[in-house]
Parts: sequence; structure tokens; C-alpha cells
Amino acid sequence: MGRLHTPHGTIDLPTFMPVGTCGTVKGLTFDQVAAAGAQIVLGNTYHLALRPGPELVAQLGGLHQFIGWNKPILTDSGGFQIFSLAQMTKITEAQAVFRSHIDGSQLELSPERAVRIQEQLGSDIAMVLDHVIGLPATYAAVEEAMERSTRWAARCQRAHQRSDQIQFAIVQGGLDPGLRRRSAEQLVSLEFPGYAIGGLSVGEEPAAMYETIAATCPCLPVDRPRYLMGVGTPRDLLEGVLRGIDMFDCVMPTRNGRNASAFTDSGQLKIRNSCYRDDPRPVQADVETPQSHLSRAYLRHLFMAGEMLGPILLSLHNVAYYQRLMRQAREAIAADSFLEFYNRRLAGWGAGDSRDDSD
Amino acid sequence: MGRLHTPHGTIDLPTFMPVGTCGTVKGLTFDQVAAAGAQIVLGNTYHLALRPGPELVAQLGGLHQFIGWNKPILTDSGGFQIFSLAQMTKITEAQAVFRSHIDGSQLELSPERAVRIQEQLGSDIAMVLDHVIGLPATYAAVEEAMERSTRWAARCQRAHQRSDQIQFAIVQGGLDPGLRRRSAEQLVSLEFPGYAIGGLSVGEEPAAMYETIAATCPCLPVDRPRYLMGVGTPRDLLEGVLRGIDMFDCVMPTRNGRNASAFTDSGQLKIRNSCYRDDPRPVQADVETPQSHLSRAYLRHLFMAGEMLGPILLSLHNVAYYQRLMRQAREAIAADSFLEFYNRRLAGWGAGDSRDDSD
Repeated sequence: MGRLHTPHGTIDLPTFMPVGTCGTVKGLTFDQVAAAGAQIVLGNTYHLALRPGPELVAQLGGLHQFIGWNKPILTDSGGFQIFSLAQMTKITEAQAVFRSHIDGSQLELSPERAVRIQEQLGSDIAMVLDHVIGLPATYAAVEEAMERSTRWAARCQRAHQRSDQIQFAIVQGGLDPGLRRRSAEQLVSLEFPGYAIGGLSVGEEPAAMYETIAATCPCLPVDRPRYLMGVGTPRDLLEGVLRGIDMFDCVMPTRNGRNASAFTDSGQLKIRNSCYRDDPRPVQADVETPQSHLSRAYLRHLFMAGEMLGPILLSLHNVAYYQRLMRQAREAIAADSFLEFYNRRLAGWGAGDSRDDSD
Repeated sequence: MGRLHTPHGTIDLPTFMPVGTCGTVKGLTFDQVAAAGAQIVLGNTYHLALRPGPELVAQLGGLHQFIGWNKPILTDSGGFQIFSLAQMTKITEAQAVFRSHIDGSQLELSPERAVRIQEQLGSDIAMVLDHVIGLPATYAAVEEAMERSTRWAARCQRAHQRSDQIQFAIVQGGLDPGLRRRSAEQLVSLEFPGYAIGGLSVGEEPAAMYETIAATCPCLPVDRPRYLMGVGTPRDLLEGVLRGIDMFDCVMPTRNGRNASAFTDSGQLKIRNSCYRDDPRPVQADVETPQSHLSRAYLRHLFMAGEMLGPILLSLHNVAYYQRLMRQAREAIAADSFLEFYNRRLAGWGAGDSRDDSD
């Protein structure tokens, strides 16, 4: 499988990027994130632009130095948060105008400004600004957002200046294979160093997402990384890898960890359940962290007592679980046994790996 | 200076014990607590008896194994929490009867039960059950509680069975030097391996506390450790050491850390203050933790964004600061320059080291 070289290090593909929305992977020190096996983390332009602001981050030496993580960083462009978080959003050809979810102040984000902010942050990989819409939507609405995303991608490419940062394009087009193909072809003709699939995991069924990935990946060049944005469950990752995806990001490991849910090879373990009251076993013995010897009984106690350490330890476990899953996927690919690995994991997860959208 | 040997390791004196109330030093992994320099932590009989219960801890191998800390542990007896946290408390000669602050259930704690629970927890150092009262109080009330504490200490000593655990007595007597002296003499005649000064830091002025320490320490044997319970600020620690105290515990490092307050040699630094918005300096460069290079600006950002990592990092800093202070005190004592060190620190803290009772 491939490797992706950046100014801050090389990433083995396929890879999973823990999400450091506001300059922190929630609940963990970056030493813990690195020890869990992460080679790259994601930062959010929308969140960091609102707080603490890109000028401040630049003044303090850029995002790597600000947060204390000297490995690669990918920054999202803000397109998804404008769709999902911002209020009173109005999208014109020129830019997105919206109100901050924090204090209601009015903000504007153009493709050029999204590029500029990410250059101020100094990430290794920047994303173009895209127009994300919810599903289901009419064909005309999906097509319009897709075509605008292409025009915005071209503007982002023209605005991009930093030579130590690469820029990925984002394929849009909802669940329509024809629109996805057209989007990919338009963006491929612009020759980006990497391509993302955006606008998924926005309410559609998993099967529809998998089909859309399968319809899109063949339209993307084999020698450029393919990044499935905002996805997903452990199963989603393996389904993505099976269809040609190289990179993933999702808040699920930390969010579920905070909500007392641990990923294991047997599905999700809800640590508050009374069956773990006196369970001396670790969550999963071979998911190794400095704390992985601690018992389910202790972790349950921490959650029942409302102690911060419960969310911390399960977030750490889940990030380590995701990293281990990608490492195993890479090893299986190298050994030409990915399908066998995929089948074994899916059998293990069974019905236990249900989508959990709590929080 | 002295060293205290326990089945789980040796402690250099004077020492500060981070408080792991419910089996966790709030917000930190025990790896972080150890890396910060702690040689011993404190657990609370009252809290652990309520949740998860001493039987469960014993069943899971004892407190060390349950929480994943294989260095020394001291357990408090519950006397202070019965005074400060429990509801509808009634103290008779036989025992304390009170209601849980968690669910209101009625509980009983006799001296013998406090011993038994601590033996189930398996701490290295157990405390006798004492009768703590608030100040100010009448002479008669202070005397009665002190005399009862002595009788309870004798009962605890008779009930104590584990040979791998030592038991400390607790001197009571409020702010009255005569009562403190009588309490100390009574307890010393019972020949405990260590002596604590209890019933302080319950609302009295610092000066009154220092005077009481000064009146009590000369009544305690020089070859046994002296432990000042529940104290205190960095200055309190140096004032205690000056008057002969060897051991301290307090929630202040972690509580203040969660509340955005960092201890430094120049006093407390309130990290939310706007003056730190773009401050690239670390909180205090020579208080070393794996994260001590991070800027005040980043820490402020974490608190302003409500991120868990802010409380985590400041708790870690404060625990490390307290450990460094005790290490420096030991070095100054060894170099016969403690008074010089004491004067230098107090000058540095100036008015900045105000008592902060928030949260």
C-alpha cells in the first residue's frame, strides 16, 4: 500500500486521523495520541477560525507548534461545519455567509479565505472549500452544490500559495453516481495531489454510502490518496478500504469514549452496564495503551462516579483501537489477505457494531 | 531528612500526596501522577466505601491493583468526610451514623469498621477514625471530640490485623495548645508508627494553623513521620516543614488546575486572564512535565473553548509544581539552607499566593 509524504513526516496508508477540532483531540494529550499510533491528526478551519483565530495561531508559530504536535496535520476547510453547525447560512457564488454557533456573530468564508486561513494555520494538507448539503435533496440542488464545489475548488487552487502545504479537492454529488462521476472528472482535470469524497455520512444509509464510494473511487487516479471525510464506524473504515479509500477521520472514537462506549473486536462495549461491575478483564487485552491493563470494573467505577478519567481512558482506548484496525488492514493488504481480515472483523462485530449516534 | 519505607516502596520526606479520592487523581492517569514525581497517593475510605465498595476492591486485588498504581497508598479513615460531606451525622461513642451525600442511604462507621475497610483496600498506611469538628467550637466540644478520638484510636489499634499495613494516629484538639498536647501525649503513649495532625484547615486563619502545628510537633516523637492532613497551599507546606511536618495531602493542585489556576514561583497564574491571550511562554519553564513546553496562550485557548485538556494540563502542572516544591525542600534541608529557600519562595509568592477557595 501507499505512503504519503508531508513536511512533518510520512503517513502509512490506509490511515485514520483522530479529530482535533479546536486544537485538541478531546480529553487526550498529543503524547497519548501519538502513543496510540496516530501518524496524522485533523484540525478544523471553522472552529479554529472562530477561536482562537488564525492570526493568533500564526503569530504563535503555526498550528503544529501551538498545539504541540510535530507530526502531519490535515485541516478541513469549514465546508462541512458551515452546513452542520453554523446558523442562518447563506451561500452565494462568492462565498458563504453565516453566524457563529458560539456567539452569533456574522462571518464570511470564501474559497480564498478558507485557503488563507489554512495557510495561516500551516497544516500539511489543506482542503478546498466545498458546498455541503444535507440528504435527501433534489437532483437540481445536489447538482448545483456539486458544480459550485468544482468552481470553488478551482478558485482555492488559484489562491493557494504555500509550497510546504498540499491541497486536496473534494468530490461532491450526493448519492447520484452520475453526479459523483462528473464531479470527480472535473476535479481530476484540475490535477490535485489528493482527492476527498465529501458530503457523505450526512444521514444516508450505510449501504448507500458504500455504493457511492464504489461509484466514485474508480474515477480517481490510483496514484493519489483518497480521503473519505467524516467517516466512520470501524466497519465503515473496512468497507471504505475495500473500495479504495486511503484516509479517514471521525470524532467517533473520542465521542463514544466520552459516552462510555468502547470499540472491541466483538462490537461496542457499554462500560456502564452492570455486567462489568466486577469484571477483572481489560476492555480488550491486545489494544495496547499504557493503561490497557486496567479492568472493566475500574473503568465502570470511574464512569459511575463521574470521574474525568473514565472518558479519558475510553477515548484513549478507542483511538488506539482505530489505529490498530488500520495497522492490521495495512498488514493484511501487504499479505494479500485483506478480504479474509475484513470478513473476520465483520463476523466479530456482528450486530454489536450498531451505529451509535448518541451525543 | 527521613525516609518512610512501605511494602510498595520508599517515600522521601517531606512529601506531598496527591489526592485520589475515588480511586483517581482527578483528570490524570496514574502514569502522569508518577511522572510528575509523586511517590505516594491518598485514597478516601469514605468515598471508596460508598462507591465502588471495599468488598469489590478487595475482590479485584486491592486498591493498588484496582487503580493501577503500584507505589505506596495512604488511606484516610473517613473522619473528615463524615464531618464535611455526610448528611444528618450522629456521633456516639460506638460509631458515626450518617447519610451518604450521593444517595442519602444510611451508613454506619465505627472505628473497627474503618480499620476493616482500609484492610480490605490494602493501603500501605491506614488512618485511625477520628472525630472531626468544625471551628470555632466551644472548649468542651473540642475536648470531647479529642478525647473520643483518643479512645477511637485505641480501638483502631486493637482492631488492626494486616501486617503489611501501618496505622497512623490523628492528634485532635482544635486550636487549643493544651488540648493538642494532651491528645499527642495520649496517642504517643499508644506507640503508633506515625502521627497525623487532624482537624485543621477547617476554617481557621493560617496563622492559627501554624501556631497549632508549632505547639503540637514538639509533643511527637522525632523518629516517626508527622502528617498534616488536608493541607494546603504551597506556603502552608513550607510553613509546615519549618515546624516539623513530613507529609501533606490536599486537593488544591487538581482543584485549582480544573479552575484554570496554576501555581508558580511568582504566585497563582489565572490562565483565563486576557493578558495570556498571545503569551508564548510556558506556565513555568522549569516545572517539567511532558507538556510543559506548551504556551500560556494555548492553555488559555483550551479553557476558553471548554476543552477537557485545559483542566488536565493545569492539574498535571500543579501536581508537578507541588512535587518539585517538596523535592526542593528536601534538597534545601540536606544542604542546611531550608530557611533561605523558605524566604526565597515566600518572597516570590508575595501577595499572589492568596488562598483560593473557589469550587
